[in-house]
Amino acid sequence: MGQLGDVISAQQFEREMIDKIFQTAREMEEQGASEVLRGKIMASLFYEPSTRTRLSFESAMLRLGGSVITTENAKQFSSKSKGESLEDSIRVISGYCDVIVLRYNKEGGAQRAASHAMVPIVNAGDGVGQHPTQALLDLYTIQKSFGDISGLKIAMVGDLANGRTVHSLVYFLAKHFPDNEIIFVSPTQVRMKDDIKQYLDKHGVHWREDVSLDKSISKADVFYQTCVQKERFEEDNAAYLKVMEASRELFITSKMADCMKKTSIIMHPLPRNEEIAYSVDDNMRAKYFEQSQNGLYIRMALLKMILS
Amino acid sequence: MGQLGDVISAQQFEREMIDKIFQTAREMEEQGASEVLRGKIMASLFYEPSTRTRLSFESAMLRLGGSVITTENAKQFSSKSKGESLEDSIRVISGYCDVIVLRYNKEGGAQRAASHAMVPIVNAGDGVGQHPTQALLDLYTIQKSFGDISGLKIAMVGDLANGRTVHSLVYFLAKHFPDNEIIFVSPTQVRMKDDIKQYLDKHGVHWREDVSLDKSISKADVFYQTCVQKERFEEDNAAYLKVMEASRELFITSKMADCMKKTSIIMHPLPRNEEIAYSVDDNMRAKYFEQSQNGLYIRMALLKMILS
Amino acid sequence: MGQLGDVISAQQFEREMIDKIFQTAREMEEQGASEVLRGKIMASLFYEPSTRTRLSFESAMLRLGGSVITTENAKQFSSKSKGESLEDSIRVISGYCDVIVLRYNKEGGAQRAASHAMVPIVNAGDGVGQHPTQALLDLYTIQKSFGDISGLKIAMVGDLANGRTVHSLVYFLAKHFPDNEIIFVSPTQVRMKDDIKQYLDKHGVHWREDVSLDKSISKADVFYQTCVQKERFEEDNAAYLKVMEASRELFITSKMADCMKKTSIIMHPLPRNEEIAYSVDDNMRAKYFEQSQNGLYIRMALLKMILS
Repeated sequence: MGQLGDVISAQQFEREMIDKIFQTAREMEEQGASEVLRGKIMASLFYEPSTRTRLSFESAMLRLGGSVITTENAKQFSSKSKGESLEDSIRVISGYCDVIVLRYNKEGGAQRAASHAMVPIVNAGDGVGQHPTQALLDLYTIQKSFGDISGLKIAMVGDLANGRTVHSLVYFLAKHFPDNEIIFVSPTQVRMKDDIKQYLDKHGVHWREDVSLDKSISKADVFYQTCVQKERFEEDNAAYLKVMEASRELFITSKMADCMKKTSIIMHPLPRNEEIAYSVDDNMRAKYFEQSQNGLYIRMALLKMILS
Repeated sequence: MGQLGDVISAQQFEREMIDKIFQTAREMEEQGASEVLRGKIMASLFYEPSTRTRLSFESAMLRLGGSVITTENAKQFSSKSKGESLEDSIRVISGYCDVIVLRYNKEGGAQRAASHAMVPIVNAGDGVGQHPTQALLDLYTIQKSFGDISGLKIAMVGDLANGRTVHSLVYFLAKHFPDNEIIFVSPTQVRMKDDIKQYLDKHGVHWREDVSLDKSISKADVFYQTCVQKERFEEDNAAYLKVMEASRELFITSKMADCMKKTSIIMHPLPRNEEIAYSVDDNMRAKYFEQSQNGLYIRMALLKMILS
Repeated sequence: MGQLGDVISAQQFEREMIDKIFQTAREMEEQGASEVLRGKIMASLFYEPSTRTRLSFESAMLRLGGSVITTENAKQFSSKSKGESLEDSIRVISGYCDVIVLRYNKEGGAQRAASHAMVPIVNAGDGVGQHPTQALLDLYTIQKSFGDISGLKIAMVGDLANGRTVHSLVYFLAKHFPDNEIIFVSPTQVRMKDDIKQYLDKHGVHWREDVSLDKSISKADVFYQTCVQKERFEEDNAAYLKVMEASRELFITSKMADCMKKTSIIMHPLPRNEEIAYSVDDNMRAKYFEQSQNGLYIRMALLKMILS
């Protein structure tokens, strides 16, 4: 296992590296603020706003004693009318910092950036492409709750066709933690895609499909809720409304949460739309805010491993 | 007097706490930069831009050795179309920091935030509601100039119906420093509201009303100027123009300033529009830039008292 | 040579100060991160976005151990509709920091700011006016490449009528380094202006003019490329298209770069539009990314000299 460099995709990690990241994240959680990255500068280069992700990365860097330069406005990189290429911007910015956290609006942006940067690139989401730190924090949250990621029934619930986070998480599970059962619960219009199901089969992962939570509610260990990706329906509002209608069946209420096993956990990548009732927040099974907080520790771990 | 936690409204403070804040602000002013909040992170969460207030808070935090994560773009919290609730955003962000400075666009936002945050909330203005640090810095400016806030004639000048800062200041004076006389000088259309006058009566504070500065100019100790709140007239431009016309009578010129007592002070919450001539800036009575600077010391004091 | 205060224009510097800045920049480059400005705060006050320049200044401040408060949104300084004057904003902000880096959208803004600020102002570009740190980093790049800025053939290429950076650089060269030959290569519509040519004549600087690179390609030591300033043609799109057409002749390809002297350097203030082929980036003569990086060292040098 070499030094950690660019963080581009969830697939790049071997199991040993994942274990190392989780172990470091746990240390970060226990240690709190330190000065280990004093003198180092992280650039947040966001081509579209994602305040939550940006602030999480920036907080991680600051908690390690480092500094941050930041823009949420990278599309309009200069006052001159025509934008410059991503590659040129990356070359320039990598002269000002020690690591770049990049949010880009098109798939493949992080890889393009990495091939031109003089410093490591951390992918903070590139369009419909990857968002590897989200996948890591999701997995870390499951690991913290159950110790071993093994023998679990994991229900993925909601818009499974378009949810980037569930795709990444499924790949992660299949490749590194195949000994779990996955239940895809979604409206028929937004089922999990076939290529991912084939990937699961290839890795010998048990899975099944459902349109309702009825059969899973008392059995699943993890309920991973995702919201309907409205932007994928932009040209077909009727289809969107149908999916929203069907999604209402999957809305988790307090009453439903109480039917779950005592050890079950409810996750959500946030922002929440209409997938989980606010009254569930106080339920001991609700882990979505802790999940978000785990993102801080994962990002601290990655920055520390990359820069120190 | 307990530890200082959330700072939501001007009314929450007891006299003892106000004295403690002012004493700490004075220490901040004398000490300059320190490292007392090293390792602590403040989040600036602004749902509408207020560059002056934001930079003042951020400078305060940095001068204490702390760090800052910031957004002026909180309304568009994520690239996903539909916003999330203030409560969810606060829960998430409070996992990334040690204190949140919140500017919200609707009254009551700070209180809603405080009931969901895991860290202290400092209200940096919520719509037509509170802006408690402004009230504190106004009062601190008067105290610095006169020592005791007692036996003073304080003229409030301008759009008294709509000015949030004068309302807060009057409440503060009535409750904690009743031994002063207040003179409300405004166009008839934007007089001070009756409930505030009744509040003054209840606390035994002397006050009178006027439409011109003529009678006060050589007698008042404090001239607190405020600008017409144009946004409150949006549906009635004719009314706005009439008030602007009447306000011109209240415009403080260099000549008028020279008619004031030598010890008088001229205040303004800024930004200035057409209330005070630029030529007044060099007059020794002009205190509005010092007042703004006092905001830095007040905010340093609050952050120090909350976090250390 | 006194202490360095405001940095407003390229013309303000005497040769001795320039040498001192370059020497300090070199030290910055060798030293890396330090803590020399710990406790100091720089305000980035940008009235129009210029992400590259802003991040370069902010990185410089952070690398010296200082802190930064920042806005790219200074035009909308407050949520109140009407903006306040630049002078008032500067007075207020200078109470929150130790130095202000100002980008303003109108010529003369930096000078106006300096006359009202209580802290030093560094001009980061004011409209069609000055951008002195760009001129300094350009000159520093030439000096690093050739040691002495003397006896060189310097080709300025592109839109010479409207390019702010070439104007500043020519003034600098004429005043402090007159012993070089300057070649103006541009479409006829955007030739270098007469007042600048007269300035060169006055200082005894040799110069000539051309519409093609043919005669210079194997002889010039420096090729300073600039892009067409589209915003100067806004009312005459036909003229713009003609200039763009003519500019294509000046596009530097890999093949052309290989025809240059081995010691020649290719510069560009960036962002690049269609002036230099991407394939030139790997050519050893390509210095534009190093030039951009030199901006960091120049800005570190200036901040250190101003604040310590």
